[in-house]
Amino acid sequence: MEIQVLKRVLGANEDKAQQIRARLIDQRVLMVNLISSPGSGKTTLLEQSLRGLQDTYTIAVIEGDVATDQDAQRLQPFNAQILLINTEGGCHLSSPSIETALNTLDLGALDLIFIENVGNLVCPAGFDLGEHAKVAVVSTAEGDDKPAKYPLLFRQAQLVILNKMDLLAHVNFDKERFYHNLQTLNADVPVIETSCTTGEGLKGWFDWVTTRVTDVQSL
Amino acid sequence: MEIQVLKRVLGANEDKAQQIRARLIDQRVLMVNLISSPGSGKTTLLEQSLRGLQDTYTIAVIEGDVATDQDAQRLQPFNAQILLINTEGGCHLSSPSIETALNTLDLGALDLIFIENVGNLVCPAGFDLGEHAKVAVVSTAEGDDKPAKYPLLFRQAQLVILNKMDLLAHVNFDKERFYHNLQTLNADVPVIETSCTTGEGLKGWFDWVTTRVTDVQSL
Repeated sequence: MEIQVLKRVLGANEDKAQQIRARLIDQRVLMVNLISSPGSGKTTLLEQSLRGLQDTYTIAVIEGDVATDQDAQRLQPFNAQILLINTEGGCHLSSPSIETALNTLDLGALDLIFIENVGNLVCPAGFDLGEHAKVAVVSTAEGDDKPAKYPLLFRQAQLVILNKMDLLAHVNFDKERFYHNLQTLNADVPVIETSCTTGEGLKGWFDWVTTRVTDVQSL
Repeated sequence: MEIQVLKRVLGANEDKAQQIRARLIDQRVLMVNLISSPGSGKTTLLEQSLRGLQDTYTIAVIEGDVATDQDAQRLQPFNAQILLINTEGGCHLSSPSIETALNTLDLGALDLIFIENVGNLVCPAGFDLGEHAKVAVVSTAEGDDKPAKYPLLFRQAQLVILNKMDLLAHVNFDKERFYHNLQTLNADVPVIETSCTTGEGLKGWFDWVTTRVTDVQSL
């Protein structure tokens, strides 16, 4: 009986996610789902992304958080519509709440939506939100073993951002081991090495987003 | 119907946790549940803890991981029995799997059990494992906003370890804000500042454990 309930919930989430993806393609809007541990730098990456892309694209951000509006507040100064979903203890976002968020947006006027998922390497990886790409963000301070230890996310990611490269000299992080772990799970996934403090690698990230926006708009 | 199922699962977990706690008190064994984000340094803290305490106490470690035995392997060199629970995608440990682990141990011969929960600030906080204390481990690299953003864990913690103090000069971490956030949630919780790289603060952590072992053994 418990398994039946779980199947129903997962099915409902996936059906809704497919509908969302079709709707976004119809409106030519790219949606990117950022997933990471707490404190890997997702919000700082978004601050840099809005700063770098807000003059080129019309952007919205859906902020997922267990509690508080702290991350949403940090993005308030930028030229982007910010929607906050507090999960009230829930460990991931799900597609029905994304649909509710999309219903408040003028999708026809948007180019790009970033989702900042709840800081968690486990649960968000299991839930399709109707995004076009899951991006895994991992920081050098977390250690080189994260792909091997949290394989579901790293298998699904269409891009990996290795953040906090400015800390590399101060932490015990073996880049070769990280890349080996990652490629075992997801052989061809691109990796962009960034530091949101120094700006290293951000151009590569903006280029990745730009290519994806162009792809969706040329469908 | 879905809510009824959830209640049953939570109830079963809590009943089992109470039984575990009673059994451990009966056997005079302290059990400490370490909870943190991925990469905050739980396993390195355990390496240091086994190194520092293995000559004084008879210790077992229950390692919770989504996948892989990498953390368990890291603890193999020490004088402690290591039990691995792979959750196969599950985002937290639960009391029935802890009971299974305890059934393989000679509790009468043990002083101390460390649980390393799945790396996750959300889900593990919601599940009582029958431990005597939940210890929240958070690293300076994760940012000073973690207590406010993940309040359930920090409300429940009987001790907070602020780890990676050696990175403090290299990261954007406001200690005053961290302590303020934490004290709003859990006014009297003690905090030990540590670096498992330099050894800073480890004596304070060993003293905390020693006091707790003594308390349980004098019951």
